[in-house]
Amino acid sequence: MFSNFQNHIVSRFSFLAEKKLFLAVSGGLDSMALLHLLKQLPYEIAVLHCNFQLRGLESFGDQEFVQNYCSQNNIPFFTTQFDTKAFAEDYKLSTQVAARELRYSWFYELLEEENFDYILTAHHADDNLETFIINLTRGTGLDGLTGIPEQNDKIIRPLLPFSREEILKYAEENAIEWREDSSNASNKYLRNKIRHDLVPILKEINPNFLDAFQKTQSYLQESQEMVEDASIMIYQQVAKEEGDDIHFDLNQLRKLPNYKSYLYQWLNEFGFTAWNDIYDLVNGQSGKQVLSEEFRLLKNRETLILSPLSEISQIEEFEINENETDVNFPLNLRLCNVGHITIESNKAIFVDAEKIRFPLILRKWNEGDVFHPFGMQGKSKKVSKLFKDEKLSLIEKEKTWILCSDNQIVWVVGLRQDERFKIDNTTNRILKIELQ
Amino acid sequence: MFSNFQNHIVSRFSFLAEKKLFLAVSGGLDSMALLHLLKQLPYEIAVLHCNFQLRGLESFGDQEFVQNYCSQNNIPFFTTQFDTKAFAEDYKLSTQVAARELRYSWFYELLEEENFDYILTAHHADDNLETFIINLTRGTGLDGLTGIPEQNDKIIRPLLPFSREEILKYAEENAIEWREDSSNASNKYLRNKIRHDLVPILKEINPNFLDAFQKTQSYLQESQEMVEDASIMIYQQVAKEEGDDIHFDLNQLRKLPNYKSYLYQWLNEFGFTAWNDIYDLVNGQSGKQVLSEEFRLLKNRETLILSPLSEISQIEEFEINENETDVNFPLNLRLCNVGHITIESNKAIFVDAEKIRFPLILRKWNEGDVFHPFGMQGKSKKVSKLFKDEKLSLIEKEKTWILCSDNQIVWVVGLRQDERFKIDNTTNRILKIELQ
Repeated sequence: MFSNFQNHIVSRFSFLAEKKLFLAVSGGLDSMALLHLLKQLPYEIAVLHCNFQLRGLESFGDQEFVQNYCSQNNIPFFTTQFDTKAFAEDYKLSTQVAARELRYSWFYELLEEENFDYILTAHHADDNLETFIINLTRGTGLDGLTGIPEQNDKIIRPLLPFSREEILKYAEENAIEWREDSSNASNKYLRNKIRHDLVPILKEINPNFLDAFQKTQSYLQESQEMVEDASIMIYQQVAKEEGDDIHFDLNQLRKLPNYKSYLYQWLNEFGFTAWNDIYDLVNGQSGKQVLSEEFRLLKNRETLILSPLSEISQIEEFEINENETDVNFPLNLRLCNVGHITIESNKAIFVDAEKIRFPLILRKWNEGDVFHPFGMQGKSKKVSKLFKDEKLSLIEKEKTWILCSDNQIVWVVGLRQDERFKIDNTTNRILKIELQ
Repeated sequence: MFSNFQNHIVSRFSFLAEKKLFLAVSGGLDSMALLHLLKQLPYEIAVLHCNFQLRGLESFGDQEFVQNYCSQNNIPFFTTQFDTKAFAEDYKLSTQVAARELRYSWFYELLEEENFDYILTAHHADDNLETFIINLTRGTGLDGLTGIPEQNDKIIRPLLPFSREEILKYAEENAIEWREDSSNASNKYLRNKIRHDLVPILKEINPNFLDAFQKTQSYLQESQEMVEDASIMIYQQVAKEEGDDIHFDLNQLRKLPNYKSYLYQWLNEFGFTAWNDIYDLVNGQSGKQVLSEEFRLLKNRETLILSPLSEISQIEEFEINENETDVNFPLNLRLCNVGHITIESNKAIFVDAEKIRFPLILRKWNEGDVFHPFGMQGKSKKVSKLFKDEKLSLIEKEKTWILCSDNQIVWVVGLRQDERFKIDNTTNRILKIELQ
């Protein structure tokens, strides 16, 4: 006779009939219950087990446990070992996030390789509730409150409407064995606190709390979809994709009273974190920019331009506009008007502000570049000769930037100033340009 | 010396300088603290006090308490008494909702009359948190979680960033007196449970919980605005207003995977509750409809038409289409094919399905309407004569509907069938039309 769970799975996911299903099984209560349920249903199933190698021998114990169960029950078994710690360090992720990334990318790979249709995981209602409360205590947005959906793409979570209590009862009634996971004690502590101290109060206030909560989450998921709709529709009005760049029309954007919400929505995935700086760009000076690890957002007149840094670094020229005081890319320069010259290292130059012409140009050196080194009475010199005299390595040469006014070199940055722009007794305004 | 509160108010709401401000003061801790704070600031203030008459003498005691404080401090004082219970009954509202409606409509009226600029209320951070949790326990959508905003329109809530604890401390330090409200014990019980049992656990998990929570609410408010943006943009694509009606283009609507969310968003304010019936209309039979107290949503071919019932009842004719089996408006009829005639009251007629022509028309009677009453061997009779014979009152006459096929009367509904459409020995299909 079928249990509630099985009836639910068969009726709710009728499209699974005749499909080939992977089950993600850690060996814990929830996934062993799921496996026990599914093996009685007329699906073709296989088990996937990830060994994240976070608990030494215990991890291998789990793997063996699931493997034995599968071989006793004639269920195909796939496993893999991850170096989760190293991956997390390499990509600067939390262990939890790293484990999730590794797990799902392996799942999708196997789906393709083995020609399976779906992956079932054992998430249940209390998982969603606990995640909701954890995110709430930390401060979160809508996406932190919507919970894991019953299905996204190829992943299906058939136990999501059921509570931990119901699953435990099923496991006990069917004498299912499982392994307790000793890992992640602090996370467990937090979840236990929520489970034993907080949720009972919520259930005291409303005995049907878990049902009400599931309704809440489904309403929030609907709202989340509408937020995404709005984000896409406004994007289509405001943004234009040009090659690898995205241009945001500020005249359009400013018409929206809540444009900050949209910028956040669009730019979040590009790894930006300095949100206030980004919002300031909208009404800020042309030429200002904000960087993430891999992207640049530049204010250029009435446009915000998003570009991959990998693309920018191939560009040969960068403009520095008249009112710019801080340049952050491709190198950090500060420009300011000063009253007099101070003795500085070769990290700064002082130029006659009236002799230069904006926009100044920053570019890599070319064979044939010639300038008039400071202190050489106006004699010219090849930049390549300067590099040779200074004994620069090939890499050092490639890293060197040239600052130009019109087509004349003002500064071989960090090495030598040009004579033609220097301060003399006719100078009215002194501009200091400093390498940060 | 100014308190934190006052600094916050002055800096955050700098646009209030020189404005005339109403303060909503119940006499409780929060509003008396707000009053004490504001009277030291250089604003022109006046106090508004609502007497909801829900606690007999105690209500008048509150009124007197606030009034005395104002006269001692030379603060203009306005008050009004509401018959809240009667209003709630008349409009089928909860006491709480009724009180809120009465209160804010009086506030806005006075703003205009007295030429004031803003109304300040004493809501604080814990109010928002408790409302969030109450709504969460009951099941809610995004709007139940966003909280009261710091400002909407003319209403400003300057204490919203502060906790009850901080306000209490201020009141004690400044020896402020206030009245305890004995009302709404069950609501108080619930709020106390949240305050004393639940919130401490959240603060144990994160000592900065209240700050994190305020951030959460501001993110949710942003999401809520984006939901409204999406709702408006999609509405513009799908809906067309024609007179008092709104036409929703189903071909457009069906393209949206989440069209149900949008229908809910648009129709919620029209008092509909039968959401599944509404969603079924989208792919249902033409002619089907769903009613709210004051509106009708009709599926008409590839359009959903929203109309006020007040407008519909002035229409003279209603069509009944060939495949319609249930008519819900302007009266309830059921149409079905039957195998034979049964003896019925005058609430049902049996007609030869091949003699009638769809769409049938339901309309009120006109002077001069003539029909051929059943059983009178084809003789004709004025409908007005039938009314007279049946001794119908004026009101009963006005309530009577006439069912017609082409321009011929099939049934004076509930009174007498027409001879011309009756069953005879040539009849192949029998249609039963029954008043429900």
